[in-house]
Amino acid sequence: MTKDVKELALEQVKQNGGLLSITPKAAINLPEDLSVVYTPGVAAVSSAIVENKGLARELTMKKNTIAMVSDGSAVLGLGNIGPEAALPVMEGKAALFKRFGNIDTIPIVLDTQDIDEIIQVVKAISPTFGGINLEDIAAPRCFEIERRLMDECAIPIFHDDQNGTAIVALAATFNSLKLIGKSRDEIKVVVNGGGAAGIAITRKFLAAGIHNILVVDKAGILNEQEGTSLLPHHLDIAKVTNRTFVSGTLQDALVDADIFIGVSQGNVLKAEWIHHMAEKPVIFALANPIPEILPEEALAAGAYIVGTGRSDYPNQMNNVLAFPGIFRGVLDAKATKITDEMQIAAAVAIANLISEEELTPTNIMPNVFQDNVTQVVAQAVVKAI
Amino acid sequence: MTKDVKELALEQVKQNGGLLSITPKAAINLPEDLSVVYTPGVAAVSSAIVENKGLARELTMKKNTIAMVSDGSAVLGLGNIGPEAALPVMEGKAALFKRFGNIDTIPIVLDTQDIDEIIQVVKAISPTFGGINLEDIAAPRCFEIERRLMDECAIPIFHDDQNGTAIVALAATFNSLKLIGKSRDEIKVVVNGGGAAGIAITRKFLAAGIHNILVVDKAGILNEQEGTSLLPHHLDIAKVTNRTFVSGTLQDALVDADIFIGVSQGNVLKAEWIHHMAEKPVIFALANPIPEILPEEALAAGAYIVGTGRSDYPNQMNNVLAFPGIFRGVLDAKATKITDEMQIAAAVAIANLISEEELTPTNIMPNVFQDNVTQVVAQAVVKAI
Repeated sequence: MTKDVKELALEQVKQNGGLLSITPKAAINLPEDLSVVYTPGVAAVSSAIVENKGLARELTMKKNTIAMVSDGSAVLGLGNIGPEAALPVMEGKAALFKRFGNIDTIPIVLDTQDIDEIIQVVKAISPTFGGINLEDIAAPRCFEIERRLMDECAIPIFHDDQNGTAIVALAATFNSLKLIGKSRDEIKVVVNGGGAAGIAITRKFLAAGIHNILVVDKAGILNEQEGTSLLPHHLDIAKVTNRTFVSGTLQDALVDADIFIGVSQGNVLKAEWIHHMAEKPVIFALANPIPEILPEEALAAGAYIVGTGRSDYPNQMNNVLAFPGIFRGVLDAKATKITDEMQIAAAVAIANLISEEELTPTNIMPNVFQDNVTQVVAQAVVKAI
Repeated sequence: MTKDVKELALEQVKQNGGLLSITPKAAINLPEDLSVVYTPGVAAVSSAIVENKGLARELTMKKNTIAMVSDGSAVLGLGNIGPEAALPVMEGKAALFKRFGNIDTIPIVLDTQDIDEIIQVVKAISPTFGGINLEDIAAPRCFEIERRLMDECAIPIFHDDQNGTAIVALAATFNSLKLIGKSRDEIKVVVNGGGAAGIAITRKFLAAGIHNILVVDKAGILNEQEGTSLLPHHLDIAKVTNRTFVSGTLQDALVDADIFIGVSQGNVLKAEWIHHMAEKPVIFALANPIPEILPEEALAAGAYIVGTGRSDYPNQMNNVLAFPGIFRGVLDAKATKITDEMQIAAAVAIANLISEEELTPTNIMPNVFQDNVTQVVAQAVVKAI
């Protein structure tokens, strides 16, 4: 019996003292090397940037380095575990940024969960970086933080738990539509989960021209008519979805739905509900590690396409398909924003990595280890600037 | 003719896109690797830290990573050039931390020069790191920032421009005393320059038992009797130096002085003033790249020992002798403070790297490339905890 991944993960960080190493790109062996790497040589680089601040994005770490900022409030399935305990997750994701996007990524975990203070800190440290990836910050505060930072910072801001997930869901939807033969304006989508991912998926789908969406949270379908009995961010999203003011449960919402997108928790989707969905029902059960329904059960109940977050089933819907290419694109182009248009272009690019000949119900998503994913996504992002 | 170091420095960062690379310590080639480096494996590490927060200093980047924080207000000889232009200097120094201390160092340059905001930002990001090195922050704000952060943070805080310089000056002084045959309480020291380094040197010398000190700034010898016509931090330091209330110029201060320490600017020390110093005068002319007096002039005027910040003269007094070992020690010991005792112990250790047999007026400081410097300093620091 081999060791399980958790034992291996613990052993690895214990042995290495964390997962990340910061190393100079130049050797320092002689007094002359000191003069080039540090003073007086380095003064020439500083002086060049004094003359032209934009050169910082050519001549310094700002060119290829992003910060990954978290307050540790919504970490994986672990919840609000605080900054120190969030650090291993941040380091792991930073490793993915490097491996898949060749992006130098610095985790910064914060000793505050106050919206204004988080915004102030991120703004203050932003001259150091070419971009900021917000990570594992709980809803609803993540919405305001992302929005205000996008307005106030001169570098791209991206909350991967929201937008990365939305891009990948959109890519999976684009390829599913090809297989079920419907267009964006014909389908009904049910998003289960009113957290960061659910809200972001819904907004991105709306921006992409998919308008018939019901969002379902624990208390049922979000309906504008419930007014202020809803949480503010639920009321906001209810106002742009569910235009026929439907109330009811997840089961009710699924009647005649084409696509179910679960960003909620394990085992909440009952197999028999799938019978009442539209023809060729599509199930994206993204709760991890236990999806909203197991693929074998969904398929037995008539699902036509099933995607999950897991690597041990077909159609893995993994954010790593999106975030490295997104940041590769904006860093290469020295962009200052990551717009919806750029994100939708990224989703189209991810979908199109599967050719029409390869596209089947069990092959709608490219493999994360496919060589050209990041490059293709980055090019699409740059083209959409 | 070879290229000069400034051209080389510019070429190097242009080619490499800055000086630092952040790389994972583990390979990611297979789906299984993803499970160890990221989810679900990483959850085990986070869970361990939830149980015991102190494990973050074993299992994460916090073990060996420090932040180097600057507001870009007092960068080398360049002055208040702002965060982006400060970045190359920070990256260069981070490279030195790695090369000489095997410490992973992350530059963070700030878009603020407000004391309260700098403190708030550093506190907020501090869970990420095992220590904070403040860098190139102007006096007098650097004093309050360092003091308050030391009180309020759970990790070591160190302002190298103050303390690193003071430790090296102290080490050079200890070895000079052996050569001139005087004890700490017999000597008169003149510190020229009332900035961050001058104030810190003075305080560290006082803590080490050297009490007869005059601090001289542009307007002359700092004298408590001038009261509030002095800047507040100058009045503070005047109250613990110059106990005979001397007024006058640098020239006046130097009469019968044993040691001149210049942390001011080039060419301000006139050769003829050295004639009026005590026997075997010691000159530490640390302004860089142009010292307060050139060594050849000082020696011609009767100086017995001359040290500078430069590598092209004997007795280079380089902070790199101190800061890597200081942080190596506190990271290894998981210390929460860097006390005066630890810093004085570091100075003794640096001085003692020159054996009595090797000690001559042109050999009072170890070479920065000597293999054991960091290790010896780190051990001394740990012992003084």
